[in-house]
Amino acid sequence: MTDTTRIKLAVDAMGGDFAPKEIVKGVNLAIKNNPNLELVLYGDESQIKEYLEENERVSIVHCSSKLDMGVKDPIREIRTNKDLSLSKAFQAVHDHECAGAVTCGPTQGVVVAAHMIVKKVPGMQRIALCPIMPEFGGKSRLLLDVGANVELRPEHIVQIAHFASVYLKESNGVENPLVGLVNIGSEPGKGREVDKETYEALKNDPQINFFGNIEPKEMFFSDCDILVTDGYCGNLVLKTLEGTAKAVGKELEKAIKSSFWSSLGYVLFMKGAMKKFKKKVSGDDVGGALLFGVDGVIVKSHGSSNAYTFSKAIERCAMGVRGNYVEVMKQRLSAESSDQNQDK
Amino acid sequence: MTDTTRIKLAVDAMGGDFAPKEIVKGVNLAIKNNPNLELVLYGDESQIKEYLEENERVSIVHCSSKLDMGVKDPIREIRTNKDLSLSKAFQAVHDHECAGAVTCGPTQGVVVAAHMIVKKVPGMQRIALCPIMPEFGGKSRLLLDVGANVELRPEHIVQIAHFASVYLKESNGVENPLVGLVNIGSEPGKGREVDKETYEALKNDPQINFFGNIEPKEMFFSDCDILVTDGYCGNLVLKTLEGTAKAVGKELEKAIKSSFWSSLGYVLFMKGAMKKFKKKVSGDDVGGALLFGVDGVIVKSHGSSNAYTFSKAIERCAMGVRGNYVEVMKQRLSAESSDQNQDK
Repeated sequence: MTDTTRIKLAVDAMGGDFAPKEIVKGVNLAIKNNPNLELVLYGDESQIKEYLEENERVSIVHCSSKLDMGVKDPIREIRTNKDLSLSKAFQAVHDHECAGAVTCGPTQGVVVAAHMIVKKVPGMQRIALCPIMPEFGGKSRLLLDVGANVELRPEHIVQIAHFASVYLKESNGVENPLVGLVNIGSEPGKGREVDKETYEALKNDPQINFFGNIEPKEMFFSDCDILVTDGYCGNLVLKTLEGTAKAVGKELEKAIKSSFWSSLGYVLFMKGAMKKFKKKVSGDDVGGALLFGVDGVIVKSHGSSNAYTFSKAIERCAMGVRGNYVEVMKQRLSAESSDQNQDK
Repeated sequence: MTDTTRIKLAVDAMGGDFAPKEIVKGVNLAIKNNPNLELVLYGDESQIKEYLEENERVSIVHCSSKLDMGVKDPIREIRTNKDLSLSKAFQAVHDHECAGAVTCGPTQGVVVAAHMIVKKVPGMQRIALCPIMPEFGGKSRLLLDVGANVELRPEHIVQIAHFASVYLKESNGVENPLVGLVNIGSEPGKGREVDKETYEALKNDPQINFFGNIEPKEMFFSDCDILVTDGYCGNLVLKTLEGTAKAVGKELEKAIKSSFWSSLGYVLFMKGAMKKFKKKVSGDDVGGALLFGVDGVIVKSHGSSNAYTFSKAIERCAMGVRGNYVEVMKQRLSAESSDQNQDK
């Protein structure tokens, strides 16, 4: 498969705080920048048309409803309402009409809908939400799970580490990705019982290039490509990262504004550098989180995504489709399962 | 008790990466800045004397050995070696020769030694390590536990929330400190089973001013004074905070150096502002972590502390002694225990 292959993706045009406006503008941007991309938008047709720049590579499938950001019971909503833009976009992936889907919908709803509609790859025990972290130190890293599962057993973590390793190899060309286990100390034997067992399981797996335990204070300075943990801890790490980056940014602003001279210096010389810095720290270029374990490339972008961020999420999804990692992982799991059957 | 009361503290002069040099220099600084402070240094007398400025308020108790930073089995070491500088400093607190102690020793060793030598306040079920976080947004906050216990039951978390509340009221004059439960979502019912139970226990406790769940991305922007969680999660949050602040700082440096004009602007106008910013973010002013639950004011400063940081840790310890929070908590626990006995 080469870069000229046309890739068709489903877009949930109604998910997120600024839908459909920013979503559709993101679609316009992605279509302009990626000549081989074809997008199907799911949502309110008249609202979408207000912002959509006409293009033969974009079509609309009208949906009468959407999954609200504050939805209390997404499972019930997804079960009972068959005309949700999110569900219909995911159905298109399940039916192989589209190769992947992108949404800014509420995380829990996206995870549930992926489970129920796209469905897990046969043999996968859990699905995992995997954001790409800001590229500090010029290196991109995956952290997972960050919230699809509150708790995970060691064998689940090993399996999602496989999935992430296959993704990085197939889609990003990273040979032998290095996997670290998020923990409170770097020595073996640190952490909770589940961490000690997971450490042993990862260490003894011949298909995983295991780094060992990694403390979060080192995560941006190590060679690890993939950081694994359960959904509860991963979510804490991710949200602490977000909160700290935001707080540090605000302190920086305050420091600059604290004197006449530094304010002047900022305006005269530093605006460009600061803009670059802010963009890096905000993670706008990252393009959302991937949902690993389901039978399709699903990208969940921030609820607060703007057009630029959303266009990057679409590109991330296309990159995943091009890498074909879901197929590779499917074949591996199917081979393992037939090995196990022969062993019996 | 007024500020003119003399306060006598024990200092482990041999703990940390730069001991005894930076420790002793920190002692010199603290003695100069705090006329009512008296310090007893525990460690190698001849090494200490190399750096110590003579003062009638400083004395030395010679100790032949120290707890190494990389010690594999601190429990055994503390049990068998009675001449460790850390142990002797803690013994002085237990014997009421000193009102509190300050050390840069290895965290696990400090926790174990506090348990074994200083001992828990009667009625306390667990001890907790409680760092003061960087003062983002002009507000100081406590996070605990960050590693004294890997796992905690709801009743333990409630008790350490009491301890922290009493500390903030007595030592910092915060009336009715607001307590938040660190969690992956703000709504009730989020998180692991233990989080749900802890939520109910905190909510139903009349002595706790409960905020509800707090996500780490909001922790620097909320009114919470105290953030509670178990030692595993607290440690992850703390270390993610450290790692992110460091990574963001490095990115900022890179952004500034990326062009001639911003480098020039930095040198001409912004050095002062940046210095202020770096100091704030590094947390050097914070002065270490407190050990709650033991019968004495124990401050553990970073292993990498320099003289300035260590002097701030000494001041934090003196402030705790002045606040008398350990006594207040002791009385409360003793009253609770006699209430319970009467109920029987």
